Amino acid sequence: MRVMGIDPGLTRCGVGVVEGRPGAPGKMITVDVIRTDKDADLADRLVAVERGIRQRLLEFRPEAVAVERVFSQHNVASVIATAQASGIALLVGRQSGLPAVTYTPSEAKAAVCGNGKADKAQITKMVTRILRLSEPPKPADAADALAIAICHLWRGVASGYVARNAAAAGHIRGGRRI
Amino acid sequence: MRVMGIDPGLTRCGVGVVEGRPGAPGKMITVDVIRTDKDADLADRLVAVERGIRQRLLEFRPEAVAVERVFSQHNVASVIATAQASGIALLVGRQSGLPAVTYTPSEAKAAVCGNGKADKAQITKMVTRILRLSEPPKPADAADALAIAICHLWRGVASGYVARNAAAAGHIRGGRRI
Repeated sequence: MRVMGIDPGLTRCGVGVVEGRPGAPGKMITVDVIRTDKDADLADRLVAVERGIRQRLLEFRPEAVAVERVFSQHNVASVIATAQASGIALLVGRQSGLPAVTYTPSEAKAAVCGNGKADKAQITKMVTRILRLSEPPKPADAADALAIAICHLWRGVASGYVARNAAAAGHIRGGRRI
Repeated sequence: MRVMGIDPGLTRCGVGVVEGRPGAPGKMITVDVIRTDKDADLADRLVAVERGIRQRLLEFRPEAVAVERVFSQHNVASVIATAQASGIALLVGRQSGLPAVTYTPSEAKAAVCGNGKADKAQITKMVTRILRLSEPPKPADAADALAIAICHLWRGVASGYVARNAAAAGHIRGGRRI
C-alpha cells in the first residue's frame, strides 16, 4: 500500500510518500516540502499548497492520505495557518477519491519511535532507520511527513481506523483500497 | 459590483451575495447557510463546504469573495474548524479567478454598524436596514456573511484594498473587476 503523509503548514508543508505494509519496513517513494512566501497574498498561498499536493497525488498515486492533526500551540496565528493548510490537504485527498485521515503528533511519534513524546531528532533518526535512507530527511517537516505516512501504514491499516473511515465515506470498493 | 461574503464555519458556513457600490445601499442577491453534520468524517465535511461555495459562485457569479478573518476564541477546536473552512473559502474564490480577501470581525462591524464592537443583534438589524430586507436574515451566520459582503463593497473598494490585492494576484484586467 502506498500512503502520502502530510505535515501541514502554510510556509512549509511536508509531503512524503511511503510504500509498505504493517510490520515491515517501508520504502520511501518521495519526500519534499511545499514552500510559500510569507509575504504573499493568503489566498495565493493556499492555492499554491493545494496545487503542490494535487500535483504530487497525480505523480505518485498514493492509495490514502494521512495528515497530522492540528493542535493548540502557543502562537494562535500559526495554529490558524496550519489549520488552513490541513483543511486543504484533507480536501484535496478526499476530492481525489482517497481515504483522508488525521493522526495526532503523539500517535505518529508513538508509531515511529515507540514514544508519544519523542523529539524532532528522535523522529528524524527513526524515520531514517525505518526507511533505510542514506541520509536523514530535511527539514523536520519532511521527516514528520514520512512519520505520518509510516504511522498510517502501521497503525491505521492494522487498527482498522482507515477501514472505518473509508467505509463511512464510501471509498472501499471490493476492499481494493486498503 | 457583486460580492460574495462568507462567514466561515464547518458546522454552519454563512454565504451571502450583495450587489452595490460604495456609499449606496446594496441589494441582496442571495443568502444561505451551508451546513455539515458534526458527526461526519472531517474530510467529507470539508468537501461539502467546498462544493457548497463553488456551486454558489457558479450560480451567482460574484466579482470578489470576502471572508471573515479567523480570530482567537476560547475554544481551540472551534478556531481550528473555522480556520479550515476559511482556508477553503479563500482557496475556492481564488481558484475561480476572483480577488479573495479577508476582513476582521471588527472591520465588518465598523463598516455596517459604525462600531467595531457591535453585537450580533445590532449587525442583524443594520444588515436588514441597509439591504431593505422584509425580515432579518437568520441565523446569525447569514447576517454576518451579508455584513462581510457589505464591508467589502463599502470599505474594500473605497480603500483600494481590493485593488492592491487583485493587482498582486494579476486579477485586474482593464479595471473590469473592481
